[in-house]
Amino acid sequence: MLTVEEALQKILAEVNVLEEETVPIMEALGQVLAEDIVSNINVPPLDNSAMDGFAVRSEDTRGANEKAPITLKVTDTVVAGGISKKEVVPGTAIRIMTGAPIPSGADSVVQFEDTDDQKNKDASSNQRPGQVSIFAETKPGQNIRLAGEDIAQGKTTLKKGTVIRPQEIGLMASAGRSQVKVIRRPVVAILSTGDELVELDKPLPEGKIHDSNAYSIAGLVKRYGGIPRMLGIARDNEKELVKKLKQVQDADVLLTTGGVSMGDYDMVKDILARDGEMVFWKVRVKPGKPLAFGKIKGKDRNGKAKSIPHLGLPGNVTSCMVSFELFVRPALLKMMGKQNLAKPSIDVIIEDTIKNNAGRRIYDRAIIEKRNGHYYARLTGPQGSGILSSMSLANGLVIIPEDTKRVNKGDTVQALMLDWNEEVNI
Amino acid sequence: MLTVEEALQKILAEVNVLEEETVPIMEALGQVLAEDIVSNINVPPLDNSAMDGFAVRSEDTRGANEKAPITLKVTDTVVAGGISKKEVVPGTAIRIMTGAPIPSGADSVVQFEDTDDQKNKDASSNQRPGQVSIFAETKPGQNIRLAGEDIAQGKTTLKKGTVIRPQEIGLMASAGRSQVKVIRRPVVAILSTGDELVELDKPLPEGKIHDSNAYSIAGLVKRYGGIPRMLGIARDNEKELVKKLKQVQDADVLLTTGGVSMGDYDMVKDILARDGEMVFWKVRVKPGKPLAFGKIKGKDRNGKAKSIPHLGLPGNVTSCMVSFELFVRPALLKMMGKQNLAKPSIDVIIEDTIKNNAGRRIYDRAIIEKRNGHYYARLTGPQGSGILSSMSLANGLVIIPEDTKRVNKGDTVQALMLDWNEEVNI
Repeated sequence: MLTVEEALQKILAEVNVLEEETVPIMEALGQVLAEDIVSNINVPPLDNSAMDGFAVRSEDTRGANEKAPITLKVTDTVVAGGISKKEVVPGTAIRIMTGAPIPSGADSVVQFEDTDDQKNKDASSNQRPGQVSIFAETKPGQNIRLAGEDIAQGKTTLKKGTVIRPQEIGLMASAGRSQVKVIRRPVVAILSTGDELVELDKPLPEGKIHDSNAYSIAGLVKRYGGIPRMLGIARDNEKELVKKLKQVQDADVLLTTGGVSMGDYDMVKDILARDGEMVFWKVRVKPGKPLAFGKIKGKDRNGKAKSIPHLGLPGNVTSCMVSFELFVRPALLKMMGKQNLAKPSIDVIIEDTIKNNAGRRIYDRAIIEKRNGHYYARLTGPQGSGILSSMSLANGLVIIPEDTKRVNKGDTVQALMLDWNEEVNI
Repeated sequence: MLTVEEALQKILAEVNVLEEETVPIMEALGQVLAEDIVSNINVPPLDNSAMDGFAVRSEDTRGANEKAPITLKVTDTVVAGGISKKEVVPGTAIRIMTGAPIPSGADSVVQFEDTDDQKNKDASSNQRPGQVSIFAETKPGQNIRLAGEDIAQGKTTLKKGTVIRPQEIGLMASAGRSQVKVIRRPVVAILSTGDELVELDKPLPEGKIHDSNAYSIAGLVKRYGGIPRMLGIARDNEKELVKKLKQVQDADVLLTTGGVSMGDYDMVKDILARDGEMVFWKVRVKPGKPLAFGKIKGKDRNGKAKSIPHLGLPGNVTSCMVSFELFVRPALLKMMGKQNLAKPSIDVIIEDTIKNNAGRRIYDRAIIEKRNGHYYARLTGPQGSGILSSMSLANGLVIIPEDTKRVNKGDTVQALMLDWNEEVNI
C-alpha cells in the first residue's frame, strides 16, 4: 500500500499550475502573482520629509541647543503634494510637512518638537512669525526620505510567484497598478455518492442521513482558496453516477465522497477504473485508507479534451476531511501556483497513550495547547472515522508513524496544526 | 503617552459585538455562532456497521480462525440507507455494507477481509453462494457504531460563540441545518486623506503619490473577515472631510489614514475632537505614534442615532499597517464575536542589533525562520515608516520593549507572526 508521501507525490505529478487571469488588485488577495511587478515610477517620487518641521541647511544648525537656540528666517511653507519654488539659502528655513518634497538648498529637516513652532502657534492663534528658533543640530540627510527608497523605478518590486497579501496589494497600488495578472483559482466539483444520503432540506426517512461531506469539503475548498461547485448526491447506481460525472467536464478537479470502499455498491472506484484512469487506490493511513485517485475525461474552456484529476475521498466523515487536508489541499495549492504546500507542523508532548495496530500512519484528532513553552496534545475522545465532532473539538492532528506500535503518555510526536488560533477568516 | 495595551483597552471598551444574522451554512465560514446548535436527530440515526462485512452473533464466531473457519448461512444483504427485515438467528449472517443499520439479532460485524467473501466473488462472477466462511472471532459491539455517537438528539452539538470552520459546517449539515444564526461581519468605511494622494487610474503630477493605504487596509479588513467600503480620498480641507464623513454614517467602524500628525493640515484629529469625541491621540509605539481614536455620530440600520468608532491611522504606509494589526484587527474580531483577539506570537533569536532611542515600543519588520528547532529573526532592511516593501519582505514583527535601550544580536525577543506559512487564503 502507498505511503502518504508516495500517494501525495503521485497526485502532485498529475496536477498542474493553472492559467493566469487579470483581476483588480483588491480581488487578488491570497492568489499568486503571474508577472513581475516592475514600477515605472519612483516611490516616493522625490526626496521628501519624514517629519513635520523645518527644512534647513545642517551647517546653519551647528551648535544649536535648548539654551542656545539658533534663529532662522522662515521663507515659505510646503505641504505633501506641493513643491516650494523657494530655495533654502543660508540663514533661512522652509516650514515643511511630512511627505513634502525637500526644497533645494536644504539638506535636513528639524522636527517641530525641536523648535519653538508649537509654542508660537499656541501663543498667537495661527499667526505665525517670520522666524523660527531651532533647539537641536541636524545632520545632513536627517529626516529625509530618498526618492525611490520604497519602490525604485525600473526595478522589480514584486516577483512572479509571490503570494499576494495586504502589503503586496498596497505595494501594487503605490506603483499605480489597479489590475494584476495572477494564477486563477481552481474550480472544484464536489459530488457525494450513496443511497443513504438525503439533501439538507428534505425529510429524513428512517436509517438515512443528511449529506454532510459535501459541506465540510466545500468549506475546506473555500478556506484554501478554491471555488467549490456542489453537484449534489449521486445514488449508488452506475447510470446516475455516469450522468453526474458529465457535469464535471469543465471543472479543474473532481472530488467525490464515498463509493471507494470494499462494499458491493462502491462503484466510484470501478467506474473510475473503467471510464477514466485509476492511478492508485488505498493509502497506508488511518483514517482514510480507501482513497482513490485517478483522472477522468473533460474539456477545457475552449472545448479541448483534457484530463481532470479525480480524488475519490472516503465516505466516512472524518476520513473524508483528513484525506482532504493530506491530499487535496496540497493539490489545490499547487494549482494556484503556491510553493509552500506543507501544512504547519510542530512537536507536541502527547498526553494519551495511543496504540497502532493497523500498521498505517495514524492522524488522530487532538486538542493542542501551549503550556510553559511546550505544546501538549490530548485526544478529543473516541476516534471513530464516523465521528465528525472529533474534528470540531480538534485544532490539530497528532501523527503516529506507521511502524510505531504504540506511543506513551509523555512521548513527543509530530502534529499537523489545523488552525493557528482563530486564523479562520474567509 | 498611552502604552499599546492601554490604547487597545480603550478601543475595545468602545467596541461592541455586532447583531446576529441568519445565513446559509456555506456562507458562515469564519463567523461566530450566535445560537446553540441542538440537534433533533441522532447521528448516526441507528446502530450501524463501521465496515463492509457480515453482521453476526459473536457467539457464533467463537473459535473461528484461518485454519478452522466457521460457516454461516447468509440470509440477506443490507446497504447504507436500507433496513433488513430479517433477523440474525443462530447459525446465520447478514451481508452488510458500511453505514447500514445492524439487523436485529446481530451484535457485531466481521469484515470482508476476515471471510471468504472476496474469494467467492472472484470465483463465481458475482453469483454469491448462500453461505460465508468466517476466519476470525468477533467481540460483542465489534465494528458497530452506536446511534447518536457523533450527534446526540436533544444535546448541544455546537455552542454559541464557536468559530465556524469547515468541520462545524459539516456538523451543522449532519444535524440537518441549512441556515444558521451568526454574528454579522462589520462594515468598515475606509477614507484616505491628503492633498498628495492620487487615485490609481489617474495620472501622477510631479511630487504626488498614489493612494496605497486604502488598498493595504482594505486587504487587511477582508483578510480578517470584515467588509471594506472604500470611500476614496478626501483633500486636506475641512469642508471636503466633513462631507466625506457623512457617507460613513451606517458603517460599523471608520478608518481614516493620514491627517493625525503634527502638521498644519492634519485636521482629522481636529475635526474628530470638534464634531465627535476624541478618546485618545498618540500611542507609545514605533511605527504608529500619532494614532487617534474617537467616536463620530452615525445611524444604525433603523435610522437610530449611534456612535461609530473611528480609528485615525497614521498616513505613513508602514505605520498604517502596523497600527491596523495592533489596534484595528482586535477591534474587528471583537465585533465579530471572537474571543481570541491576540495575534500569534513566538520567541525569536534576533540576528541584528537594534537600538531603541525613541522610548516607545518598536515593532520592526523581520524575516522569521525556523532552524534547528529555534526561530531566528533578521530585519528586512531599512525600517523607515514610509517603506512598505519592508512589510512585503516580512513575515513577522519583532518587538523591542519601550524601556529597552538596545537588543543585541543573539538576544531572545518576542515576535508577532504576520503569517503562518502560506495561510493567506481568502
